Amino acid sequence: MTTGRDRPDHPLERLIFFSDAVFAIAITLLIIDVHAPHLPRGSNDAAYLQALADLLPSLLGFFVSFFVIGAFWAGHHRAFALAGHHSEKLTGPNLMTLCTVVFMPFSTAFMSSNYGATIPTVVYCLTLLVTGLCNVRLVRLVTSPPIVAEHVPAETIALTRMRGFAVILGALTALLVAFISPYLSQPALMSIPLWRLLLQRQARRSLAA
Amino acid sequence: MTTGRDRPDHPLERLIFFSDAVFAIAITLLIIDVHAPHLPRGSNDAAYLQALADLLPSLLGFFVSFFVIGAFWAGHHRAFALAGHHSEKLTGPNLMTLCTVVFMPFSTAFMSSNYGATIPTVVYCLTLLVTGLCNVRLVRLVTSPPIVAEHVPAETIALTRMRGFAVILGALTALLVAFISPYLSQPALMSIPLWRLLLQRQARRSLAA
Amino acid sequence: MTTGRDRPDHPLERLIFFSDAVFAIAITLLIIDVHAPHLPRGSNDAAYLQALADLLPSLLGFFVSFFVIGAFWAGHHRAFALAGHHSEKLTGPNLMTLCTVVFMPFSTAFMSSNYGATIPTVVYCLTLLVTGLCNVRLVRLVTSPPIVAEHVPAETIALTRMRGFAVILGALTALLVAFISPYLSQPALMSIPLWRLLLQRQARRSLAA
Amino acid sequence: MTTGRDRPDHPLERLIFFSDAVFAIAITLLIIDVHAPHLPRGSNDAAYLQALADLLPSLLGFFVSFFVIGAFWAGHHRAFALAGHHSEKLTGPNLMTLCTVVFMPFSTAFMSSNYGATIPTVVYCLTLLVTGLCNVRLVRLVTSPPIVAEHVPAETIALTRMRGFAVILGALTALLVAFISPYLSQPALMSIPLWRLLLQRQARRSLAA
Repeated sequence: MTTGRDRPDHPLERLIFFSDAVFAIAITLLIIDVHAPHLPRGSNDAAYLQALADLLPSLLGFFVSFFVIGAFWAGHHRAFALAGHHSEKLTGPNLMTLCTVVFMPFSTAFMSSNYGATIPTVVYCLTLLVTGLCNVRLVRLVTSPPIVAEHVPAETIALTRMRGFAVILGALTALLVAFISPYLSQPALMSIPLWRLLLQRQARRSLAA
Repeated sequence: MTTGRDRPDHPLERLIFFSDAVFAIAITLLIIDVHAPHLPRGSNDAAYLQALADLLPSLLGFFVSFFVIGAFWAGHHRAFALAGHHSEKLTGPNLMTLCTVVFMPFSTAFMSSNYGATIPTVVYCLTLLVTGLCNVRLVRLVTSPPIVAEHVPAETIALTRMRGFAVILGALTALLVAFISPYLSQPALMSIPLWRLLLQRQARRSLAA
Repeated sequence: MTTGRDRPDHPLERLIFFSDAVFAIAITLLIIDVHAPHLPRGSNDAAYLQALADLLPSLLGFFVSFFVIGAFWAGHHRAFALAGHHSEKLTGPNLMTLCTVVFMPFSTAFMSSNYGATIPTVVYCLTLLVTGLCNVRLVRLVTSPPIVAEHVPAETIALTRMRGFAVILGALTALLVAFISPYLSQPALMSIPLWRLLLQRQARRSLAA
Repeated sequence: MTTGRDRPDHPLERLIFFSDAVFAIAITLLIIDVHAPHLPRGSNDAAYLQALADLLPSLLGFFVSFFVIGAFWAGHHRAFALAGHHSEKLTGPNLMTLCTVVFMPFSTAFMSSNYGATIPTVVYCLTLLVTGLCNVRLVRLVTSPPIVAEHVPAETIALTRMRGFAVILGALTALLVAFISPYLSQPALMSIPLWRLLLQRQARRSLAA
């Protein structure tokens, strides 16, 4: 049986396809936990605005997790664009990464509906951390022989792998902040792009050397 | 790494594929918020018909939002059919458009379960407006170099971009109407096809000139 | 812009793909309305068996609707396998068919949670009837120029179109039965394969003549 | 109409695609039944940890069923990688297998929310058993003429078919254990990889002979 990537119905395609569907469903399910408030007929505008204000933690959780899952999808996308061959060894690590992604709507709902509590925030950061670790392991596998395509330059591989560590460092930052102030933990996730820039500068410097 | 569109497993394909899945899930999740009435055993036909009548706002919301999301999908479809190359610049704007689409089941449920209230109707129209703006930005990106395919005529690009503005004008109309009468806001969305005809006539005239 | 079916990223492919995803989500959402009974700790086996027995209408509704949606998917599959070209005219009728399919989980839950009531059973049969009518219209469009592929024999087209009428006749049968006895309405849907055999025999006879 | 696998829009592709989407949705819906605990404001850490501890059966059910559905997907993937031609005969058995997979979130929620009760555990094991049987039937069909590709060696077919029996033996083991102690039934599912090793050794020995 050929393991080349020349057939559109190649096993690698199907694995990517299945993963895309799981990412898409997990990212969309996030909205299910943002329950639309139902007010008694004749409530005034102030009551509706208050109901929306009470929903802010859920809305914040939705938007942050949407872009976190989106970022993991983009990373998966970027790594598998470098893959050229299928291997049975992919099934396990890919399923584990998807499992942690599917778990994110639960962690998000747990944190959002208990806004400001330490344990739910820690559970959220830990979910992110485990997702990040599974992702780094998967990206390493995908960008190594025998799976990686032959023509991919070593620099592209190094940069792709490096990106994965930014989420882990961001999750660790948010985890540490959670123990000091759970309210500042989600904003601390915004350090992820900063970590990425830092890591990429470092990677480029060591590649130049 | 090639950026051509000749491989079925091309990064552009995967982005389109992921987007299709998100559109499909968001459009299907709309039905989850139409809760099937459960009446006591032995209720008569009149009670069941009344239960269905009470459900009319939810059913109306379902049908309107189904065709609104369907129209956004069709626009996405139409724009990406003109794309010939992948670019990392697509990931962000595409995710933002999907995020607003995923938000629609929430806005729909909020408006439907508080039928006739101003704030929920305004939230619905604003969601539509933001989705329309994200969409216009994405369509502009997809129909510009380096993403657009080489053979696409300028007229097709102009008409494709123009269509996106119809939703924005329709959402603005519905938003204005919402402040006068929330009940007339959803019917005001039916002005979208009228705006489209008007815009297309305008576009053809200026292209002919 | 080419309208041939030779590119894997062809607009027709994307429409089929989006439809498949909607069918898949609608068919899977059916299980959400079968609520798992939660009994107090220490309940005996008889209590659990009784809880399952109370669930029989929901389970019956799940299985019947699963195979009904599955049959519509198979029909969509069969018809589009004959398509060779994309057309903008497909978007509307395809969305309408998908809308009725997405509505099925609601109709199923409404009928199952009010088992034996006339109105919910009539709503279910009407949903099926409207889905069948939208489907027949779509199949006719797909198997007509300019969409149908050039090499498809007239007999295949005639047989494919004929199959769609079996669901309509079955839904009409179940609708009539619902007014006599709602309990016998779902079993009456099992007349669909009988109608199909009858129609196919008729079609083959008239093709032979 | 050609039945070869050379066109990316081949009917076989669409069947695989639809199946992938159903697997992906069923595996992701599992998280919906893990309800995020919502505690009163100001609850202490111990209360949150207790809430998580109370959730352990649900979490265990989620993880076990995630990898069970994942394993069925991997088996489907492996079997269809050997397929070379489409056949109408696939539609029915494939839909039946998907139906049992879609049923798994219900069985999981029923077992998890009644942790330690015999009947729910038996229902779970029976679901697994029926899924396993439908799967074995489907794999046999896919790896037989006229569907199987011409170049597939008999040994690959024998090993692929053999794997399916491991789930059935594991489900039977868990079913027997459920009647003795429902708490040990889920751990007994971990015998599946052991059965697989045993079966593969047996298969290799008989192929060598």
